[in-house]
Amino acid sequence: MSLPISFLSDFGHSDEFVGVVHGVLAKLAPESRVIDVTHSTPRGDIRAGALHLTRAIQYLPEGVALVVVDPEVGSARKALAVATGWGFFVGPDNGVLSPAVAMVGGATEMVSIENPEAMIPSPGETFHGRDIFAPAAALLATGEAVLADLGPQVTPGEVRPLLLPLPKVEGSVVSGEAWWVDHFGNVQTNIGPDELASVGILPGTVVTLTIGSTVHSIPWVGTYSDVGKGEPMIHVDSAGLIAVAVREGRADDLLRLGNGVVVTLAGTGSPLVE
Amino acid sequence: MSLPISFLSDFGHSDEFVGVVHGVLAKLAPESRVIDVTHSTPRGDIRAGALHLTRAIQYLPEGVALVVVDPEVGSARKALAVATGWGFFVGPDNGVLSPAVAMVGGATEMVSIENPEAMIPSPGETFHGRDIFAPAAALLATGEAVLADLGPQVTPGEVRPLLLPLPKVEGSVVSGEAWWVDHFGNVQTNIGPDELASVGILPGTVVTLTIGSTVHSIPWVGTYSDVGKGEPMIHVDSAGLIAVAVREGRADDLLRLGNGVVVTLAGTGSPLVE
Amino acid sequence: MSLPISFLSDFGHSDEFVGVVHGVLAKLAPESRVIDVTHSTPRGDIRAGALHLTRAIQYLPEGVALVVVDPEVGSARKALAVATGWGFFVGPDNGVLSPAVAMVGGATEMVSIENPEAMIPSPGETFHGRDIFAPAAALLATGEAVLADLGPQVTPGEVRPLLLPLPKVEGSVVSGEAWWVDHFGNVQTNIGPDELASVGILPGTVVTLTIGSTVHSIPWVGTYSDVGKGEPMIHVDSAGLIAVAVREGRADDLLRLGNGVVVTLAGTGSPLVE
Repeated sequence: MSLPISFLSDFGHSDEFVGVVHGVLAKLAPESRVIDVTHSTPRGDIRAGALHLTRAIQYLPEGVALVVVDPEVGSARKALAVATGWGFFVGPDNGVLSPAVAMVGGATEMVSIENPEAMIPSPGETFHGRDIFAPAAALLATGEAVLADLGPQVTPGEVRPLLLPLPKVEGSVVSGEAWWVDHFGNVQTNIGPDELASVGILPGTVVTLTIGSTVHSIPWVGTYSDVGKGEPMIHVDSAGLIAVAVREGRADDLLRLGNGVVVTLAGTGSPLVE
Repeated sequence: MSLPISFLSDFGHSDEFVGVVHGVLAKLAPESRVIDVTHSTPRGDIRAGALHLTRAIQYLPEGVALVVVDPEVGSARKALAVATGWGFFVGPDNGVLSPAVAMVGGATEMVSIENPEAMIPSPGETFHGRDIFAPAAALLATGEAVLADLGPQVTPGEVRPLLLPLPKVEGSVVSGEAWWVDHFGNVQTNIGPDELASVGILPGTVVTLTIGSTVHSIPWVGTYSDVGKGEPMIHVDSAGLIAVAVREGRADDLLRLGNGVVVTLAGTGSPLVE
Repeated sequence: MSLPISFLSDFGHSDEFVGVVHGVLAKLAPESRVIDVTHSTPRGDIRAGALHLTRAIQYLPEGVALVVVDPEVGSARKALAVATGWGFFVGPDNGVLSPAVAMVGGATEMVSIENPEAMIPSPGETFHGRDIFAPAAALLATGEAVLADLGPQVTPGEVRPLLLPLPKVEGSVVSGEAWWVDHFGNVQTNIGPDELASVGILPGTVVTLTIGSTVHSIPWVGTYSDVGKGEPMIHVDSAGLIAVAVREGRADDLLRLGNGVVVTLAGTGSPLVE
C-alpha cells in the first residue's frame, strides 16, 4: 500500500509544471493516489499557501503532503521532510508547512533533504518541486525511504516558523485582518467566534464592522440565505472563522476588503429583525 | 469495486475547495476514481451547470455524479440523491441535476439527504459540497449506503425542475438562443438540425442568421476547414446542436454572440459555392 | 496492467472538454492512470504544445501520450498513432508530436487512425479528442488494440515535421529567440549553454543581452537568489536551456520579452562581482 500524496503549489495551470510533478510521482509511486489541493497559491505567497494547507489538512487522507511554495528555490534554505501523527510533510523551510504541522499535533522528526540519491539530477537549480520535493514525497509514500535516508536530522529550533497575525481583543471590540478572499469574493478573517463571545458579541445580533474609516452595521447570521440578495453578512465559515460575505454577491468588492486589510468588530446588542 | 465519481462544480481553481472535496472522497471512497468534469461553471449558474453535465453524461463512466452548483447553500432547499439507470446523482434540489437525469432515462428513486450520520460535522453552513454532498457520493460509490440510508424519499412533484428554453419554429424560420460560449469562442444554440430540417433548411446551403437587427449570410458546413480562415459558419457541433463558429477565430467576438442572445435562422435555398 | 496515459491539450478549463475526455478514458481504460500534462497550450499553438510535451516527456511514466492541439480538426489532416521506445503517441499530424517523438529516439511504427470501429460515433466533426484520439489512446493503453488495428501504416515522409528555430552562432555572439514565457514570467530561449560555450561565454560572467535596440548587462548565475530582488539574470533553466529571469519579479515585463522575440547574447569577459 502506497500512501496518498496531497500536492499544493503556486505553479498555476498555464504551464506543464504541475503535470511534470505528477509524472515524477507516477513514475516513482505508481500506486499512490495524488490529490491536487490547489496550485493557485499566489506566487511565492508563503502565508497564503500555509493557510490553504491548514484549512484543507483535516480533510485530506493521511499520507504525504507535498507543498511547493518556494520563493527562495536554489538558495541555502533547507528542503524539509517532516514526520507527524498525520503522515509526512515535504516542502521548503520557509514556514509554509508550519501551521498545518502544528494543527496535526506537531513534528515527531524532521530532516533536511540532502541525499543526492533521493533526487533527480537536473541541468538547473530552479525546479526543486520536480527534482527534490516530488522524489522525496514519492519515496516516503511507497516506504522505499524513511526520513533518515533523505538527510540529516534538524531540530525545531533550526526550522523557520511562520508568524500568523492574531486578533486583538481590546475593551469591547475585536480587531483582526482579512486574510483570504475566495473565488466567490467571500472574505475570511483571522477572528474566531470565541474572541467575539469573549466580549459579548453573539450570533443572531447586529455587529458593527469597521474598515478604515467606514462603519457598517451587519447582521451575524447562519448562512447566506438569511439576508436579502446583495446584502452583506458575517457568519462562521466552513473553517470555523468569522467571514464577511454578500448573498449572491462579492464581499470583497462591496466592502473593499482585500488580503491584509484591518477589520474591527464591535457589538450593538441589537437582535436581528426578522 | 467502488464506483467512479464524476465531480462538477462552480468552485473554480483559485482556492482549495476542489482539493478538499477530493480529499473527502479519497478518505471515504479510497478505491473510487474521481473525474473532474469541470469546475468552471459560472458562480451559481444552474442552467450552465446543467448543460455542462448534460453534454458530458453519456461520456462519463457509470457511477456517481457529484454536482455542486448551489447558490442557495444553507437555505431550506433540499440536498438530493437520485438513483437512475446510469447510476447516482447527488446535488442540490435546484434543477441542476434534472436535464441529465432525464437524459439517462429519469429517476427510479429519490431521497432528501438529511441523515446527520451521513454528513461531516462542520462549524459553518456554507460548504455542503464538502460536508453533505461529497460524503453522500462516497457512501453510494462504495456501497456503504443505499439511498434510503441517506434520508426520506421524495417524489418527482417535490423536486424543482429546470426549464430549458425551446427553439420556436414559425413559418419558415427557427428562433432560439445562444446558450453556451466555449473556450474557443464557439457558440452553441438550443436549435437542433431537426428543427431546421422541418422548415426545409438543410446542410450544405447558405442560411441567414439574424442577431438583433443584423442579418448574416452564413454557410452550413461540416467542419471548420470548410470555410476560409476568419470566416463564420454554422455546423452540427459535437453535442448534436447547431453552433456558430469562426475558423481559427472567435464567433462570440465576430458576431457579438453571448449567452442568452436570441438567434433566428432561415434558409436561402442557395447551395454552397465551392 | 493498463499503461498510464499523459494527456495534453489546448482545451483550457472553462468547459467540460477535459472532463469528457477523462470520462472516455475511464470508460475504455478503467485501470489506466491519467496525468494532465497541461491543458493551457494557447489555442491551436502547435509549437507551444510541442514544447510543453518535449520538456515534460522524460518525466512522464512510459505509456501513452495523448496530445490534442488540433487547429485543423475535421480537415484532411491525418490522426496519428506512433510507437516509440518510450511508448505510444496519439495526436493530429501537424507536427505537435514530432519533437517529443524525436527526443525519445524516434518512431518505430506509425499509423493513420482510420478504423471507424476504434472511434466513438458522433453527430459532429469537431471533437476528435473525444471521438478519435481518446479511444485510440485507451485501446493502446489497455492492449486491446495494436497500431495496425487502428489504420494503415504511414511512412516518415508522409508525416508533417515541425521546424523549431535553431540558435545562430555568428562570430562571438549567439542569436536565438524567446519561445516560452512561464507562469512566473521567466523567459526560456532556444539557446543552450553549449552554444554560448562555443564562443567563450561562460557561467559566472556578465553577458550582454540585446533585445531590439536595447542592450542589457546581465549576470549569468546559478539561481534566482544569486541576484538582488527585482534584478534580472540569465541561467540554465530546469530544461537545460538559457532563460532570462528576475528574482521575485517577471522577466517578460521588465525586459519586454514575449514569445518569438529575437535575443542576442554576447560575452563581456567580466567575472561577477560578489
